[in-house]
Amino acid sequence: MSLNRRIVLHERPDGLPGPAHFRRDDVALLPLEDACIRVRNRYLSIDPAQRGWVNAGSNYSTAVGIGDVMRSLAVGIVEESRDSRFHAGEALYGWFGWQDCCDARADQVLTRVDPAKGPLSLGAGVYGITGLTAWLALMEVGQPKPGETVLVSTAAGAVGSIVGQLARELGCRVVGLTGSEEKVRRCVEEFGYDVAINYRPGIDVGRLRAACGGGADVYFDNTSGPIADSAWQVLRSGARIVQCGTASIASWEPPPQGPRRDRDILVKRLRHQGFIIFDHAARYAEVVPELAKRVASGALRFREDISDGLDSAPQALADLYRGDNDGKRLVRL
Amino acid sequence: MSLNRRIVLHERPDGLPGPAHFRRDDVALLPLEDACIRVRNRYLSIDPAQRGWVNAGSNYSTAVGIGDVMRSLAVGIVEESRDSRFHAGEALYGWFGWQDCCDARADQVLTRVDPAKGPLSLGAGVYGITGLTAWLALMEVGQPKPGETVLVSTAAGAVGSIVGQLARELGCRVVGLTGSEEKVRRCVEEFGYDVAINYRPGIDVGRLRAACGGGADVYFDNTSGPIADSAWQVLRSGARIVQCGTASIASWEPPPQGPRRDRDILVKRLRHQGFIIFDHAARYAEVVPELAKRVASGALRFREDISDGLDSAPQALADLYRGDNDGKRLVRL
Repeated sequence: MSLNRRIVLHERPDGLPGPAHFRRDDVALLPLEDACIRVRNRYLSIDPAQRGWVNAGSNYSTAVGIGDVMRSLAVGIVEESRDSRFHAGEALYGWFGWQDCCDARADQVLTRVDPAKGPLSLGAGVYGITGLTAWLALMEVGQPKPGETVLVSTAAGAVGSIVGQLARELGCRVVGLTGSEEKVRRCVEEFGYDVAINYRPGIDVGRLRAACGGGADVYFDNTSGPIADSAWQVLRSGARIVQCGTASIASWEPPPQGPRRDRDILVKRLRHQGFIIFDHAARYAEVVPELAKRVASGALRFREDISDGLDSAPQALADLYRGDNDGKRLVRL
Repeated sequence: MSLNRRIVLHERPDGLPGPAHFRRDDVALLPLEDACIRVRNRYLSIDPAQRGWVNAGSNYSTAVGIGDVMRSLAVGIVEESRDSRFHAGEALYGWFGWQDCCDARADQVLTRVDPAKGPLSLGAGVYGITGLTAWLALMEVGQPKPGETVLVSTAAGAVGSIVGQLARELGCRVVGLTGSEEKVRRCVEEFGYDVAINYRPGIDVGRLRAACGGGADVYFDNTSGPIADSAWQVLRSGARIVQCGTASIASWEPPPQGPRRDRDILVKRLRHQGFIIFDHAARYAEVVPELAKRVASGALRFREDISDGLDSAPQALADLYRGDNDGKRLVRL
């Protein structure tokens, strides 16, 4: 009887999760149950949102239990199927967890992955929640118009770099905030930002405003915290703020203090709205071909940062919160 | 030659404006210029927004200059017209200032006031920015649906009391936050709130959540500050927050600190948006008849708090920020 290697939640983190919060817990693979499919994972998706899935506090989904397999999106191949809608050999993207094999039900599958659209890894990246989030959050919440300025935090990140390129294609001025001189260079040379600014050690608001051509009409925020405080100071009247992540704040229990924004919200008629990709599943099938078209033409550039082996997953997640990744973080099994 | 009594801005307030910041500065009435109308003010509208018109900081309109007539909406009667679109004797609502007479141009007029719809004072209240703000901010930004819970701060105030009644008419559960036991009683008995809660000395969040039937789907905020902090704790996923005022914060230079809300915005997919009535002028003509219909039928109850004489205006404004008004604050000339 073969073994299924698994990484389970060992201890609930107060703030950001890291290797200390996980452990291996291998179990025997049992015969596949009726109405299930056995998926052999090929790529695990390492996502900023995973911190929220293991924290005890308020979130949009129930927390992963202690001793349970770490929740994760992944791309895998169907090895055996007892559900007539799926067949052995096809590639799927879904909630398959940090483990070799997942005995899944149909509702754990998000999309099929089409091998004709590129390497399988893309199914967990630009065609997965990374690209889908960039597209749908920008279009649905940000609603940029040609000639407007779009400001992006974590501009060189997996989501941010796609947001920047899509906004540029729409005819926007695009300004990025990122965490190193190397990433500044990459934002401009590789992802087509008009200007990128290193937020370390701090942001000069006057310089940021000038970079935005006077002010920003859309602020795509993945960080919260002091970076966002600087960005908020350069918003134009009627600006839309997309809250897509809060990567710079380690713990929200209790919420840290920051400048109250109600007066700016009022007098500038700002609209600040949160975005969670899983609310928009009905639109995945429409957006993936749009992304694939741009990947195929070379118009959309996309980096992957892949480590090998199941055991590298906890450290890969910890690295993500330090900004140590170089593109979309994946673990190859 | 007759005198025009005027109240001008004497000194720019750091925070809330009061009598010390104004002075009388009467001038002779000169012959009416071409293309102007002379309006004799009957009711001055005392509005929370006026603090923003005299503060130096960021705002949606240029600040009133030192020595200039205090900016104010008012209802007045055309005494003389050199603009063929207006004729002597008709009642207008517009930017006529804290003075007896205003020599105005057409762009200072917001609406005509129809005497058939009730006393002239209503033109500066329920048919003015008070009622229009309540209607348009609730419908356009709050977008309440039947069965949802609408939570209103300054629930007994001029705007809040109308918001509460309109939300109730839409089939919502309506909960109000207000500043005295007397106003709690009035919210329930007069304005039809399901529950009203005195925010003095503080709000019990558990009690507020229960009053909301588990949580609020719309929070209509006129206060900001600690009252809003309590309200934000009971928001349901997908809630809309209408920022219509920030009455509880005296000074925004620099912005006071408060709990960061980005994580709530994200995980609950909240939408927080500012509303300024003057962006929506194109819709006044459509909304006033809706309000008038409800006033005529008795379905919409509306209080006025009227003081007499031009010189009472500065104190009336100061009282407003202390919550000492009993309905829509007006000054009768």
